[in-house]
Amino acid sequence: MEQLENIKDSGGWLKRYRHSSTTCHCDMTFSVFLPPQAQTGEVPALYYLSGLTCTDDNVRSKAGAQRYAAEHGLALIMPDTSPRGEDVADEPEKYDLGQGAGFYVNATQAPWSAHYQMYDYVTRELPELIAESQPQINDVKSITGHSMGGHGALICALREAGSYRSVSAFAPICHPTDCGWGEGCFGAYLGDDRDTWNEWDACKLLEAGAGCPPLLIDQGEADSFLKEQLNTSALIDMAEKLKLPADIRMQPDYDHSYYFIASFIGEHIAFHAKYLNA
Amino acid sequence: MEQLENIKDSGGWLKRYRHSSTTCHCDMTFSVFLPPQAQTGEVPALYYLSGLTCTDDNVRSKAGAQRYAAEHGLALIMPDTSPRGEDVADEPEKYDLGQGAGFYVNATQAPWSAHYQMYDYVTRELPELIAESQPQINDVKSITGHSMGGHGALICALREAGSYRSVSAFAPICHPTDCGWGEGCFGAYLGDDRDTWNEWDACKLLEAGAGCPPLLIDQGEADSFLKEQLNTSALIDMAEKLKLPADIRMQPDYDHSYYFIASFIGEHIAFHAKYLNA
Repeated sequence: MEQLENIKDSGGWLKRYRHSSTTCHCDMTFSVFLPPQAQTGEVPALYYLSGLTCTDDNVRSKAGAQRYAAEHGLALIMPDTSPRGEDVADEPEKYDLGQGAGFYVNATQAPWSAHYQMYDYVTRELPELIAESQPQINDVKSITGHSMGGHGALICALREAGSYRSVSAFAPICHPTDCGWGEGCFGAYLGDDRDTWNEWDACKLLEAGAGCPPLLIDQGEADSFLKEQLNTSALIDMAEKLKLPADIRMQPDYDHSYYFIASFIGEHIAFHAKYLNA
Repeated sequence: MEQLENIKDSGGWLKRYRHSSTTCHCDMTFSVFLPPQAQTGEVPALYYLSGLTCTDDNVRSKAGAQRYAAEHGLALIMPDTSPRGEDVADEPEKYDLGQGAGFYVNATQAPWSAHYQMYDYVTRELPELIAESQPQINDVKSITGHSMGGHGALICALREAGSYRSVSAFAPICHPTDCGWGEGCFGAYLGDDRDTWNEWDACKLLEAGAGCPPLLIDQGEADSFLKEQLNTSALIDMAEKLKLPADIRMQPDYDHSYYFIASFIGEHIAFHAKYLNA
């Protein structure tokens, strides 16, 4: 594992690493923020999964998360959104398929299945790598994300019972089997049998009985993707039906941008800290 | 004046405008953040001057300032760093001369003098435009900035006695007549007579007796530009000699990036709010 950067930030250190992934079979890059509390003891971790077209750079530059992570003593783990490289399958003319659009699933269909194993990467390889390389970060963790990464956070928390103490999301894709972004990626990565898609859909997982840790969602009402792609109402309906421990907040006037995330990241980090530091 | 954007952010609104500048004789773009308090009353303003290569976009995306401006009820005014356009003189191969490098002076030398009047733009035209177009923002103001913009904030506060209630800077160019960036731009914009440069140099202005409002500076000790370009020690020496109301803080390990700015922007905004809301 090669350390690419080490930047003083908010009293802690923002680091970027590149490593050869045994899951995605290519070089992967991720960032870690170590809060000041990591200098004198162990800290828990909040994973942040990013959205379509992003790398680890967007959140660390634009969300303003480090200040709040420093305040609450949480490490931030910020992976990339897909495998990368010249040898990795891609659809360069599409922003919503291929590199930058891993959708946090394990692909079963060629050519995608050779590298697009982002679910195992985020839930297995990356936590193991953190455990081996970052002794200041303990194994207590929660997860959040934006848009495609909000979907990713939800399915990780729902599929890995007990692994994440809490889950939150900013403008998540709530029901990917029933929207264009999800259908495009699931069709390519998982194939034509839609029954196999359901285990990667938050609403379907909940319907099938998955347990859900404490959940916080913020969704902007002026988000241009709200109706066609994000389908928050499907998740709201499911949460009410199942009486989930969920706080799903519609925020008037907010859009899909990082200005929206920056506006609420402090509350999300405080929410996770309550469970991570309990 | 044309409104280009209107984005909900931190409970307030982030706006971007383009207008035909009577000072710079070209179209100029700037951003304004209106905090939530502006919906029910008048608010004071903090000007933020950006550094080399930046536009108004860097600070609004990366500094995390809006959250703190919302907390303290301040508007943020974020101008561009130079005149722009095909008709505007430039040195495209240089990042530190021409477009993106206006240095907040009034150029006297051709071809620069036709458009490079950033001092008058920032201290005259822009406040007048704000007064005419933004009734929620009153005429109480302070100023801050980064690097070249930190220099800009200092000279505005020192030259315009009584206009700014407080001044702060992140890694400012403290003594531009004695560093490569300053000598390059001042030589081009102001000509060979170095005596004319002194009225645009914070250390020289202080030496000549300029009054200084309350001043806060943060400077990273791992900033790669510290010794050759920023010359903080010259300003520290002058502040001590003159017993200025200055808090100039050297911050171990911090570099020149927006991660550094984001780490201390909250303290700078609280500092200005103390004077702006007094």
